[in-house]
Amino acid sequence: MATEVNDGALAAGEVNGAAVEKTVTFTAVKPRLFVEASKVGDAVAFYKAAFGAEEVNRVNHPKRKADQELPVLISAEIKLANSSFLVSDVSEDSSATDKAVGSGLVFCLETEDIEAAVDAAVKAGAVADGEISEGEGACCGGRVGKVKDPYGVVWAICTPTAKKCGDVEA
Amino acid sequence: MATEVNDGALAAGEVNGAAVEKTVTFTAVKPRLFVEASKVGDAVAFYKAAFGAEEVNRVNHPKRKADQELPVLISAEIKLANSSFLVSDVSEDSSATDKAVGSGLVFCLETEDIEAAVDAAVKAGAVADGEISEGEGACCGGRVGKVKDPYGVVWAICTPTAKKCGDVEA
Repeated sequence: MATEVNDGALAAGEVNGAAVEKTVTFTAVKPRLFVEASKVGDAVAFYKAAFGAEEVNRVNHPKRKADQELPVLISAEIKLANSSFLVSDVSEDSSATDKAVGSGLVFCLETEDIEAAVDAAVKAGAVADGEISEGEGACCGGRVGKVKDPYGVVWAICTPTAKKCGDVEA
Repeated sequence: MATEVNDGALAAGEVNGAAVEKTVTFTAVKPRLFVEASKVGDAVAFYKAAFGAEEVNRVNHPKRKADQELPVLISAEIKLANSSFLVSDVSEDSSATDKAVGSGLVFCLETEDIEAAVDAAVKAGAVADGEISEGEGACCGGRVGKVKDPYGVVWAICTPTAKKCGDVEA
């Protein structure tokens, strides 16, 4: 375990007995979810209805007009719990063609009111994935209720980490 | 377009001519990336080395010991640019077995210094995916360099959104 922690300390900008590298500053991390072109608007509306997310930015196609067959909206930025994510037309980015993300990815969405959050998501069109249960390690071991949204994303609605983490070492 | 925006306004807690629903408050959204059990420690080390991420929390298996074949570390929380994500042992969560996330997902990582960020990620073990280029709609149209990390995740390292968004309506 100690070895892993030490290996991880070789971040850019730290001294490693070798040259000191330039430190790169990142200002934001935003997951960008791709959906079919015709579903971008629906997906944005779903995330607003299901989670009370706020649309903070939208990008329209530079050439399409509202009266054409293809939708004008190609990407929108959604704000949810002080984080942002993007919902985009999959045809706009070739790197999205590889649908697998690692060995899987879910979004943990932390709230004190898991029942109401699951209910609201289901009402908006998500499908409950099992019952609300005590997680075992999942999202730090609190209670968790999972829903799968109409766009194939699993949301693990769970107790805030800060309240439930017992086995903390780092 | 106006219709989409109005549809999206039916968030929990707003008046819709019907009953006023209870408002659910979310405190955080954290993407949870799953990797093989044996790779959790390596993945955490990679994200530290590649992006200067900080490990803020780790969860060990309640029964495994350091001298056993299976690794002790089953999940870690990583902080990067004021966001958090989790890296977890895939065997701990059955909902992770569906590897497809929508029609694909990448992480947009915003920085002013795209070249240095791509270089650091490649040096840490990521593979560059094409050249740094002017995005067309991607991450709001700024410059973008893509890398794929050893765990199958594509990172679009790009110009901060706030500087490049021209076509903003919302």
